[in-house]
Amino acid sequence: MKRNLLLAPGPTPVPEEVLHVLGQPIFHHRTPQYRKIFANVSQRIKDVFLTQNTVYTFTGSGTSCMEAAMINFHNLGDEVLVVDAGKFGERFGDIADAYGLKKTVIKIEYGDAVPPAMIEEALKKNPKIKAVCVELCETSTAVVHDIKAIGAVVAKTDALLVVDAISGLGADRLETDNWNADLVISGSQKALMLPPGLAFLSVSEKARKRMADSNLPKFYLDLKLYDKALKADDSPFTPAITLVVALDKALDIILKEGMENVFARCSSLGDYTRGELKKLGLQVFSNAPSATVSAALVPEGIEGEKLVKVMRDEKGVTLAGGQGHLKGKIVRIAHMGAIRKEHIDEGIAVLKETIEELTVNAK
Amino acid sequence: MKRNLLLAPGPTPVPEEVLHVLGQPIFHHRTPQYRKIFANVSQRIKDVFLTQNTVYTFTGSGTSCMEAAMINFHNLGDEVLVVDAGKFGERFGDIADAYGLKKTVIKIEYGDAVPPAMIEEALKKNPKIKAVCVELCETSTAVVHDIKAIGAVVAKTDALLVVDAISGLGADRLETDNWNADLVISGSQKALMLPPGLAFLSVSEKARKRMADSNLPKFYLDLKLYDKALKADDSPFTPAITLVVALDKALDIILKEGMENVFARCSSLGDYTRGELKKLGLQVFSNAPSATVSAALVPEGIEGEKLVKVMRDEKGVTLAGGQGHLKGKIVRIAHMGAIRKEHIDEGIAVLKETIEELTVNAK
Repeated sequence: MKRNLLLAPGPTPVPEEVLHVLGQPIFHHRTPQYRKIFANVSQRIKDVFLTQNTVYTFTGSGTSCMEAAMINFHNLGDEVLVVDAGKFGERFGDIADAYGLKKTVIKIEYGDAVPPAMIEEALKKNPKIKAVCVELCETSTAVVHDIKAIGAVVAKTDALLVVDAISGLGADRLETDNWNADLVISGSQKALMLPPGLAFLSVSEKARKRMADSNLPKFYLDLKLYDKALKADDSPFTPAITLVVALDKALDIILKEGMENVFARCSSLGDYTRGELKKLGLQVFSNAPSATVSAALVPEGIEGEKLVKVMRDEKGVTLAGGQGHLKGKIVRIAHMGAIRKEHIDEGIAVLKETIEELTVNAK
Repeated sequence: MKRNLLLAPGPTPVPEEVLHVLGQPIFHHRTPQYRKIFANVSQRIKDVFLTQNTVYTFTGSGTSCMEAAMINFHNLGDEVLVVDAGKFGERFGDIADAYGLKKTVIKIEYGDAVPPAMIEEALKKNPKIKAVCVELCETSTAVVHDIKAIGAVVAKTDALLVVDAISGLGADRLETDNWNADLVISGSQKALMLPPGLAFLSVSEKARKRMADSNLPKFYLDLKLYDKALKADDSPFTPAITLVVALDKALDIILKEGMENVFARCSSLGDYTRGELKKLGLQVFSNAPSATVSAALVPEGIEGEKLVKVMRDEKGVTLAGGQGHLKGKIVRIAHMGAIRKEHIDEGIAVLKETIEELTVNAK
């Protein structure tokens, strides 16, 4: 099987020129050579976040960075508001529980986006809430949240807006500074077109004021250690050198295209993908479609997990299935990063063919 | 400058066949293809640790794993004994402080190994000590600790023996199970010959009994989440896929040679390296020489930092300098992983040449 078409919402395909960098001999990180690259990367990634603030780089999965966003700005017992509109919203709540933060959960039906008015109401009802945690793109349901409107609501309060943009950054529009997103989290293996292993966090001035007082225990994820190292364009702990060097190359590609073009491309490819899914007679899932990933309900009589498995193991096309109670019920196709129309066309053709085969077999 | 000879004690050179794997297109991790590789890697890395127990894989720097070893087995206020014989011993103490553990520090002169009798005495004096934290190879001083003797002492008590083998594993002999090392920590960028980004932790049965009760807050480093995922040969959070696949290749190389041969090679290359350093008229630093890395005092009248810089930036040979109060006073040369006699010879020749040049210039 020669085909290896990756259309899952992360990891996404890594461009040839980035793969080339990943295969190069390694060099030491406590050197001017590495520091120069890291300084350059740390500066240029701000253009992807659309922020003027510091963006921290962690060696870890995206979840490590969600945790960093929760534990560097809070004290034991602080109240946080968590939007649970899917698997990743739920994770914010789990982290809050692990660290003794008191969470209020706004539970949203899978497939829906949170109405900003619900957040406004919750903040009015409980002025002690210190943070509002929400996904940009809730990857598990292919929903994009209205961060701009939520930011306007949260900015009027003392609470911080924490945005999990792990899958969405660089695909769904997010204007970190303009929209008052205080803490924005992302990961390397989505629209940044790298293998997984790096995570990123931008920190607003409003959030920074909270850092000194935070009493939750931390070491590896303690931003104060990162601040100290950043003064010398360094990391406090040995970084994933090859991924940082590869990020430099990926940023070349992204910033050459320009963020406005990137947003427009992903948005338009999302529209196209959903159009093609509808042409197959499938019902699009998500009442707030994202530029990152789209989802469709698996037709009646077909097992979703089998559909994904056959496409992947027999035909070399990797889509994602559903998570949580959507397991077996939806398929998800990403349209971010290096994914282009021809990849979507190939994926949709194989999806059509496989649905037909499974339908015949089911009869 | 064509030469790129990496002789620092991590990151170490990555073999060609491993670099080739790192440059391959990525695939998804929630697949049978990835799970098979991860299962294989998780099983075979036990042979490097010389353990029958589970070895956990983290996406992170080695320090993340030191933290995991501290926070999964303790409760707030627990007492720990930290051997501080260099920069990395000190780090155990910093992590203990961050999490509200009470530390007793055995401070050892840089260059010396801790006498096991000192640990025995400390444990007798304070039977409440729950863990003894020590480096296998203290990378900053090129000292190897007598883990076998320390293990025999700690095994007689209720304390756990926590061994930071980040640099030493797969170079300095460590028989995890035979020597009663309860928690052994390592990283990818040393004798495992990979880029940095993965860290590993082996957990003994004695340690495992402590896990359920541990009340220190954690999420990303919570081993209970890893245990659950491991049942399906999976990770709880998106792993650094390319590094795991590359580890599979690195383990092929290591286990084909065999651990006994690997230990003998590193030990003998260490002897050779120190012999060559002495031939240059340099004084070897470390009263307990390691098979991982060797150190020598920089000759009087030469600035150690300049020596390292000239060798690296003008001649393409990366040694390590000193850390902490040894800054500028020693140079360190690794002899683990893919480093062979011809690399040491080249490094020593360039060291000799550069010392001569700097001596002439100083006159």
